[in-house]
Amino acid sequence: MGKGLTNRSENYSQWYNELVIKADLAENSAVRGCMVIKPYGYAIWEKIQAQLDKMFKDTGHVNAYFPLFIPKSFLSKEAEHVEGFAKECAVVTHHRLMNDPNGKGVVVDPAAKLEEELIVRPTSETIIWNTYKNWIQSYRDLPILCNQWANVVRWEMRTRLFLRTAEFLWQEGHTAHATRQEAEEETVKMLNVYAEFAENFLAIPVVKGVKSANERFAGALDTYCIEALMQDGKALQAGTSHFLGQNFAKAFDVQFATKEGTLDYVWATSWGVSTRLMGALIMAHSDDNGLVLPPKLAPTQVVIVPIYKGEEQLQAISVKAREIKEKLENLGISVKYDDRDTQKPGWKFAEYELKGVPVRLAIGPRDLEEGSIEVARRDTLTKETMKIEGIETVVKNLLETMQHDIYQKALDFRASHTVSVDTYEDFKKHIENQSGFVLAHWDGTSETEEKIKEETKATIRCIPFDAAEEEGACIYSGKPSKRRVLFGIAY
Amino acid sequence: MGKGLTNRSENYSQWYNELVIKADLAENSAVRGCMVIKPYGYAIWEKIQAQLDKMFKDTGHVNAYFPLFIPKSFLSKEAEHVEGFAKECAVVTHHRLMNDPNGKGVVVDPAAKLEEELIVRPTSETIIWNTYKNWIQSYRDLPILCNQWANVVRWEMRTRLFLRTAEFLWQEGHTAHATRQEAEEETVKMLNVYAEFAENFLAIPVVKGVKSANERFAGALDTYCIEALMQDGKALQAGTSHFLGQNFAKAFDVQFATKEGTLDYVWATSWGVSTRLMGALIMAHSDDNGLVLPPKLAPTQVVIVPIYKGEEQLQAISVKAREIKEKLENLGISVKYDDRDTQKPGWKFAEYELKGVPVRLAIGPRDLEEGSIEVARRDTLTKETMKIEGIETVVKNLLETMQHDIYQKALDFRASHTVSVDTYEDFKKHIENQSGFVLAHWDGTSETEEKIKEETKATIRCIPFDAAEEEGACIYSGKPSKRRVLFGIAY
Repeated sequence: MGKGLTNRSENYSQWYNELVIKADLAENSAVRGCMVIKPYGYAIWEKIQAQLDKMFKDTGHVNAYFPLFIPKSFLSKEAEHVEGFAKECAVVTHHRLMNDPNGKGVVVDPAAKLEEELIVRPTSETIIWNTYKNWIQSYRDLPILCNQWANVVRWEMRTRLFLRTAEFLWQEGHTAHATRQEAEEETVKMLNVYAEFAENFLAIPVVKGVKSANERFAGALDTYCIEALMQDGKALQAGTSHFLGQNFAKAFDVQFATKEGTLDYVWATSWGVSTRLMGALIMAHSDDNGLVLPPKLAPTQVVIVPIYKGEEQLQAISVKAREIKEKLENLGISVKYDDRDTQKPGWKFAEYELKGVPVRLAIGPRDLEEGSIEVARRDTLTKETMKIEGIETVVKNLLETMQHDIYQKALDFRASHTVSVDTYEDFKKHIENQSGFVLAHWDGTSETEEKIKEETKATIRCIPFDAAEEEGACIYSGKPSKRRVLFGIAY
Repeated sequence: MGKGLTNRSENYSQWYNELVIKADLAENSAVRGCMVIKPYGYAIWEKIQAQLDKMFKDTGHVNAYFPLFIPKSFLSKEAEHVEGFAKECAVVTHHRLMNDPNGKGVVVDPAAKLEEELIVRPTSETIIWNTYKNWIQSYRDLPILCNQWANVVRWEMRTRLFLRTAEFLWQEGHTAHATRQEAEEETVKMLNVYAEFAENFLAIPVVKGVKSANERFAGALDTYCIEALMQDGKALQAGTSHFLGQNFAKAFDVQFATKEGTLDYVWATSWGVSTRLMGALIMAHSDDNGLVLPPKLAPTQVVIVPIYKGEEQLQAISVKAREIKEKLENLGISVKYDDRDTQKPGWKFAEYELKGVPVRLAIGPRDLEEGSIEVARRDTLTKETMKIEGIETVVKNLLETMQHDIYQKALDFRASHTVSVDTYEDFKKHIENQSGFVLAHWDGTSETEEKIKEETKATIRCIPFDAAEEEGACIYSGKPSKRRVLFGIAY
């Protein structure tokens, strides 16, 4: 199998695009900006979904489903929401086609124009709060802790598989609370769920923090986020959790009778992650040979490849290989035994490297005699001959070690690609070199933030929750600052 | 809790509509024809999904995701497909909104008109076969066994929650094969999966058969279906599996190199079930007190209600109730202990009857003394006082019994509501009385089928696979017929 992947060092962006295609994760479709998620890519997404869904349910949430379409007028009900959002979107104007009276094919039936246009949801706050209005009368109806797994559409001009597509898959949580405090706690709780998922499953370390006003979700009082660093030194926002205050409740007139007998508007949060996480997963760990997948999210965790000449050898090896497969499966490990005779072992090795299968076991006639087996790790590309006896425990432990090591490697990378700078000169140098996260003092104003963005393309990724209080001067304006914020070039 | 459900005998249709709303399954949204699936309804759908997904994977299928939008021109590529389908659909014509220059709110930006309109998928054969074209070169690339869980939109004029909505959720399998035989086998295999699911999980007996040419899916050579009988004597098509021949391969020019080195068009199937199954589930079993859910699909299988006066009694009961809950959960049973002090036991009883929780356990101070507990069955509305000791095994067995009994009841109902008739007079009488399925001879022509439909509204639900060969005369034309076909009034 000729992989022919561009090297990361040569052209990171091209490496990414090729890898997504060659590893059979996704491809562009006939519809501009919309992707096809191929079975192998979708199998990873299903693992992401299953784990997140479990974490949402463990924190008391339930799933529901709201309409794909949003009446156009809904979008303008929350002033900031429509200002900052929702302009580039798919607009449904008609509800019928007809045979073309002038020839072949079909045309839009002009008689079937909708009275009010419908927007394909770019996010669902408006339609959901319009629904919650009927669900909430009293404090007894609160909290509402709903999540939705859905597709959404934002008409992006420049698209890239998984990272930015017109249609993408995501989950959006929408919760309703009786008090400000409870809603704020929910916002933080879900950010922590995202961070835990990113670190323990995606094996990607993230910085938790709050967005500056400029980068806030349209309609939110505060946007919390997790920010990850990719191997090319760029930052990727991997999840957001919004404290929406009473904005949507006011826009859709959702009031409730409090315990004390007064009327108040409901407090809201929303939070989401999307198929963009697939992009983060690919970019954070993979190498010039292909995907590197953390074992917890790998659709196939172990592949067994027989090395043989002739049917007789294959049969003898297969008996042993199937034994090993069964033992591994009994430990909850997903295993593929690839005994195809249409491909050579070398081709298979390259193929599974490209697909990021964490552990490869190879077994030949001599191994059979000696009771040995070759164990290869995808992350380090190292291999070792080991005893077959007890190999299932060795592999189980190895998968855990790899999950940890892949995270640690990303953590080390981030540590060595995060700098603190105190002058604008240094700041620009680091940003130009695309050397990673830059921690710097900022005077807290949108003007400064915009100037820095104009001049360097760097944006404030977040104000980290764990930023230490520290007296300093803004790198741009020299005005006083109390803590460093996290800058980076964003995906 | 005042249920105030209309009785089935009074107005079946109104009973259904009220039940869907009152049991918190779904509701109409602000968007015409689009429903909101509420958390309780969605929890049932998740159980349906999980089980079907497992059955698809066990039969070798994988999931993938294809675009929401279909270029308008794709729809006309398969002539019969566009003829029989896809006229009433949501059409996207623009990709941007703008602030209204004449006032408040937003309007469609006329400058953002799409070159080619996009159709929100009513079904995905066209976009998927356009994709498969790039996936298939040789027989080695076959079979492709993909399934997709997705939302689809068909602009229905008269909608009813779950049964017929403009947007609905479904799965659509799309497979590609090297031979006609393999594709035909796949079509039947998936119909059998649907039938097994309907009978073993939904607890609904179904008739498996093939559609007449009139009722065939647009573009298919054959449509197989499962047909179920509802309590009002109407038939509901619960799932379809289509043998598409080479029609879509020809329309999208998908050829492959055969083993023999020739070029041939690929053979196709598609198959789907939707949130309509929720409608079938509700209508097949429920009664005038509310939902009746087969235990295998009930989000909560057992509810425990304490009967108490004062905090002290509640505490004593709660200790025992939590013990029972844990024992049940250890057997894999989902249990809710409802110790809310805001509602009386009677209210709770009615609520859980309405929601169809299969088993209710009630426990009071006297039960504690005597080591007894009241066990109530939702399906029969019977109750019995039993020993607490070993109650977990009793309940586990009871749930299995109920799953079986609910199916058996539906089977008995169908048996007593299926008649064989030999004259058109008898036929019309039974159809008018809406007394269920009618088995009758038919001459095999579309003309006769259409006449019967015009005159009686009855349609051929299917030609059952198990219809015995039997010489007869068509009830309408008197022409010879070799087997009876299944007629009914369809949802």
